[in-house]
Amino acid sequence: MEIFGDAKTTGLEHLTLEQMLEDNLPEPILKEVKRILYGREVETLDLPKFEKGVNCEIKGYKMGGAIVEQLRPPRIVRVAIIQNTIVLPTTDPIRDQREAIHKKLAKYVEHAASCGANIICLQEGWPMPFAFCTREKYPWCEFAEDAITGPTTELMSGLARKHNMVIVSPILERDQTNGDTLWNTAVVIGTDGRVIGKHRKNHIPRKNDFNESTYYMEGNLGHAVFDTPFGKIAINTCYGRHHPLNWLMFALNGAEIVFNPSATTKTLSEPMWGIEARNAAIANSYYTCAINRVGTEVFPNAFTSGNGQPAHHDFGHFYGSSYIAAPDGTRTPGLSRSEDGVLIAEIDLNLCRQIKDFWGFRMTSRLDMYAEKLAKVVQPDFEPQIIKQ
Amino acid sequence: MEIFGDAKTTGLEHLTLEQMLEDNLPEPILKEVKRILYGREVETLDLPKFEKGVNCEIKGYKMGGAIVEQLRPPRIVRVAIIQNTIVLPTTDPIRDQREAIHKKLAKYVEHAASCGANIICLQEGWPMPFAFCTREKYPWCEFAEDAITGPTTELMSGLARKHNMVIVSPILERDQTNGDTLWNTAVVIGTDGRVIGKHRKNHIPRKNDFNESTYYMEGNLGHAVFDTPFGKIAINTCYGRHHPLNWLMFALNGAEIVFNPSATTKTLSEPMWGIEARNAAIANSYYTCAINRVGTEVFPNAFTSGNGQPAHHDFGHFYGSSYIAAPDGTRTPGLSRSEDGVLIAEIDLNLCRQIKDFWGFRMTSRLDMYAEKLAKVVQPDFEPQIIKQ
Repeated sequence: MEIFGDAKTTGLEHLTLEQMLEDNLPEPILKEVKRILYGREVETLDLPKFEKGVNCEIKGYKMGGAIVEQLRPPRIVRVAIIQNTIVLPTTDPIRDQREAIHKKLAKYVEHAASCGANIICLQEGWPMPFAFCTREKYPWCEFAEDAITGPTTELMSGLARKHNMVIVSPILERDQTNGDTLWNTAVVIGTDGRVIGKHRKNHIPRKNDFNESTYYMEGNLGHAVFDTPFGKIAINTCYGRHHPLNWLMFALNGAEIVFNPSATTKTLSEPMWGIEARNAAIANSYYTCAINRVGTEVFPNAFTSGNGQPAHHDFGHFYGSSYIAAPDGTRTPGLSRSEDGVLIAEIDLNLCRQIKDFWGFRMTSRLDMYAEKLAKVVQPDFEPQIIKQ
Repeated sequence: MEIFGDAKTTGLEHLTLEQMLEDNLPEPILKEVKRILYGREVETLDLPKFEKGVNCEIKGYKMGGAIVEQLRPPRIVRVAIIQNTIVLPTTDPIRDQREAIHKKLAKYVEHAASCGANIICLQEGWPMPFAFCTREKYPWCEFAEDAITGPTTELMSGLARKHNMVIVSPILERDQTNGDTLWNTAVVIGTDGRVIGKHRKNHIPRKNDFNESTYYMEGNLGHAVFDTPFGKIAINTCYGRHHPLNWLMFALNGAEIVFNPSATTKTLSEPMWGIEARNAAIANSYYTCAINRVGTEVFPNAFTSGNGQPAHHDFGHFYGSSYIAAPDGTRTPGLSRSEDGVLIAEIDLNLCRQIKDFWGFRMTSRLDMYAEKLAKVVQPDFEPQIIKQ
């Protein structure tokens, strides 16, 4: 049961949704279509391009929407999200694979810094191929590293300190002080280069290729919000975006920006991609940043996917399309569906509280009632409220 | 602060989003755009048109997506949703206004029956103009009626019995046995014409024109699911669609179809309309039916909207665009943005459990953890989980 069609390529992955619309729709139809689909018009930021030979898209937008308050100055922040392909074949030595990605991504982070980025978030498991689909333990477990002392954190710490940035770096974590367990962890690095803390993926998929519980379990670090010089941020990793309660808890802890570093493929989820992180932005009056891996990754040993199809060597096409959504539901265009990209959004954090005041979702949320109801639902003798004809 | 632009009309309300795409995008671009935006392709149902002179669109789709199980037969149901303008000017006698809408809608319901509809849901407050924006009590409170004995329930009971249908009829309720209070209530009528029960809107907007708490308070009937011969159904009324916990409770009580009868206008919410009910379908593995009022309703006395604009006589354009979403996120095209319409979807209720099995969202939802956390959040001494740099 493949959800959205078979794995066949349409040959249109080089075009984003926006390109397909912009190339074909006449004004004023295009404007109306974009309004219905994406909300308020967002201004384009004029950003430096990458140097020649670097095959990475750069897009920037000013999200707008906030009013100027009398008693609070605007809190303008530039948020960057990055999507990347792997660099070397998955058969190359682990160290080489990682170093090649490190080298490429360091360049992207440097460039984002030159664009004025204050906070950067990379994709889920960015310094490695998304090998969990194979269900093989080795060599893939060797990509796991310590969240504080590992080479990836070392690299990103240096960049954070150098550019006075906050960096969210999602890796495969090896927790040496707790039985060498693995975790799907986002490391949050402060402007001084020190690790502020980490978030561990709260909801682990157990479906088809996505048997990630083969490697790690549900996160045990709760729903921390990290209070940085550029706003209160949190991380909802990948599959957690399907869980409204996960999004909600970050809001209840005060998040203003929630990153959703992900790895998801075309036939599995593409039509849901534009919906979930954006709905979370609306429902919780915060900014969300949906970041997807990009490209197709080929593994040496064929594996099956629990869907009746023959064994194959790749997990499907990661469709990129990373985007940022504002608390009022307005969103940016997406990054490429096939190539590396950096997306920068200039946002005013004040919009979060303004939208709470405007729409009143938090005020009208009746949390007491739901706390009481959920407490009953999880009891073994729970009886659903059903009225029969 | 108007969210999505000013109240100016674009002059494109006669076109739906799908029409704008279909009229301008070449194949195979159109196909790819529709896949990304709407998911699996849905088949068109061949349905009888309305008789000449009835100005009401009819659209029908077979949602598909379910597999044939070995131990459970398919549970095929036809669901109808209806959006309608009012008929007479709001200055006409209340009784005349209501009777004119009754007469028109009876025709629509009869037609839906002739299309094989098993369950029908009408829009929020369907037998009246959406007068709550005026904040005037009279004459508008006179539209309120008893949920069991009122003229609207009487009309719909007869139609339900005649056609062996379940009808969800959202009205303004006058609760005579409880102090003559008003409620925003959906009456659920069984195939025998008797009222199975009712749902009262759980979340009441308090914003700009939407000061509905002037008239009625948050519903006190919980999150009942109605077990009908055509599946387990529930109602999340209008503003409740912004509240993920409201959607969730219906799921926890076992709903397979959740209706969202609404009344919302273009500049306020149009870019959010395609997101929220559809996200709820995905997150909760059930069908959702988003039903919006349509047209512009003009009131005799000018009113202000708390947005700095001059007093005016209408609440803005209700943009219709009613649609149905499946548990896998696939959705139908929308009804008209300017005219009456009936949308019929043929669905297999078995898809709900199949998608639960496939995606595993319920299994991985960690409800125990959230029940515990929410219980803490609502305590006066709650301390959010914040980690400072």
